[in-house]
Amino acid sequence: MTTPAHPLLIVGSIAFDDLDMPSGEHRDVLGGAATYSSLAASQLARGGVRVVGIVGTDFPEAHLEGLRTRGIDTAGVERAQGKTFRWHGRYSSDLASRTSLDTQLNVFADFSPKIPAAYRSSPFVLLGNIHPKLQLDVLDQVQKPRLVVADTMNFWISGEPTALAQMLARIDLLVINDEEARQLSGIHNLVRAAADIRKRGPSMLIVKRGEFGALLFDESGTFFVPAYPLEEVLDPTGAGDSFAGGLLGYLAARGEVTASTLRKALYFAASLGSFCVEGIGPSRLLSLTRSELGARIAAFARLVDHGGELSLPG
Amino acid sequence: MTTPAHPLLIVGSIAFDDLDMPSGEHRDVLGGAATYSSLAASQLARGGVRVVGIVGTDFPEAHLEGLRTRGIDTAGVERAQGKTFRWHGRYSSDLASRTSLDTQLNVFADFSPKIPAAYRSSPFVLLGNIHPKLQLDVLDQVQKPRLVVADTMNFWISGEPTALAQMLARIDLLVINDEEARQLSGIHNLVRAAADIRKRGPSMLIVKRGEFGALLFDESGTFFVPAYPLEEVLDPTGAGDSFAGGLLGYLAARGEVTASTLRKALYFAASLGSFCVEGIGPSRLLSLTRSELGARIAAFARLVDHGGELSLPG
Repeated sequence: MTTPAHPLLIVGSIAFDDLDMPSGEHRDVLGGAATYSSLAASQLARGGVRVVGIVGTDFPEAHLEGLRTRGIDTAGVERAQGKTFRWHGRYSSDLASRTSLDTQLNVFADFSPKIPAAYRSSPFVLLGNIHPKLQLDVLDQVQKPRLVVADTMNFWISGEPTALAQMLARIDLLVINDEEARQLSGIHNLVRAAADIRKRGPSMLIVKRGEFGALLFDESGTFFVPAYPLEEVLDPTGAGDSFAGGLLGYLAARGEVTASTLRKALYFAASLGSFCVEGIGPSRLLSLTRSELGARIAAFARLVDHGGELSLPG
Repeated sequence: MTTPAHPLLIVGSIAFDDLDMPSGEHRDVLGGAATYSSLAASQLARGGVRVVGIVGTDFPEAHLEGLRTRGIDTAGVERAQGKTFRWHGRYSSDLASRTSLDTQLNVFADFSPKIPAAYRSSPFVLLGNIHPKLQLDVLDQVQKPRLVVADTMNFWISGEPTALAQMLARIDLLVINDEEARQLSGIHNLVRAAADIRKRGPSMLIVKRGEFGALLFDESGTFFVPAYPLEEVLDPTGAGDSFAGGLLGYLAARGEVTASTLRKALYFAASLGSFCVEGIGPSRLLSLTRSELGARIAAFARLVDHGGELSLPG
């Protein structure tokens, strides 16, 4: 394998998920933001994905080996005494909402990301949804990345506003959902919420809206990517993380961040998100082939192809 | 004015709306599906829009004159003894939902659409949301239209399934929202709901999702158009009817219905819908200029321009 030119560093959770789905109950499912993001990214940035996370002694080496066979570097995954982070969630019958039944942080409670020396020059960095102080710790350890992307959540927005503000000032692109954008800005209208958030640091903002697609706000204006319409959705868990991983994977593969590559990257992000929800846990990402991804991207292009110029009729 | 080559016939309600908006209360606002649809369509199919509806003796002639100055033929608007249809609604603070406080059908209760002889050869027909039996009556009066488009609602889906099924068997394109598509088909997933509905008659189906855009299902596959992201939404009333009017207005102006014109038409539909919600009642549609519409279409094209070919990185 050739050395990838533009490695991607992903920091985030690795977990066991217990999933109560309308279709049945699933236990000990491989989960966590870093897992989904790295699997999605590895479809595009082959051999160039590096993961930093923490697992307990109960975490099967086979799971890490599964990541490695997809070209993901797991040397940054720390194994600590104790149990792996575990989340138990129940989804509504239409999968539109979910309830957290139990969250056991376990070894994740003391997670303090240590970026291996070999990772510190990674030009692309994805900071998964962890404490903003830890996100800042990561940024203190890396050397001038070309692109820093971060996720966050309502828990940190309300509970850690100071650390969050410091984090926002140091990143290039924030990827959050619509409710988080509204909470962070205090503004309901997403166009105005985006303008407010972009003043706080990130020059680029992506607002995810689940099955309703995503909006990008950057210096070139506003861009929209739909969600790919699926006949069957099995499990939304990890869709947002797969979206972020697909986004970064494409940008890392291309090695540049321009208005144009970013807009194309959003289609790869949405494609990886669409595959994620087709299987329980990360199963569909694990079985995904390059030709399947290529076919979906082509179908996606047809979905939005309005045939060229839109002009007023005479 | 030259005689338009492809006139558009619109049949539906004309009303007074009393609107309780977060921004204030508005009384006696010009409303009704036919009003919004014809105003939107007239931006594109200039001089070629014909309206059939009913108003009471309380309806100001100035409102009809306002439609006529926009090239809308109102000869098919019947004036009956009694009061005009009146609807009173209250919107939630985020405008995402509304409650009907009062509905007075008045002269609309006895509406029996009579299509003037001069209208019967209209090649494009939009059947607004009225009793499906009345929609069938209209179809019995027109001569082989090139395209018949219909709207309907939950009330008829649950209350008039037989007439609705007869209507569906005779139309080309059904335009409904996502909840109506789910109710009509009994299927939650929209892709599968669409396949079910298209088996019942209409070869084409558009599923509107409000601020989340719209999906088209036809023989060429699935197509998606987003909603145009706005900084300020004042009043969603009539947005769906403006969408349908813009769609038909574009198709009538082009004089053909192909997979390609239909996909472009959806952008005009969404644009007219976006203007509609920028004003209270139809005020923004009434002030809209052709150059403003052209500018929004151009901005819309930028919103979805992913820069050409989407291909897997090397």
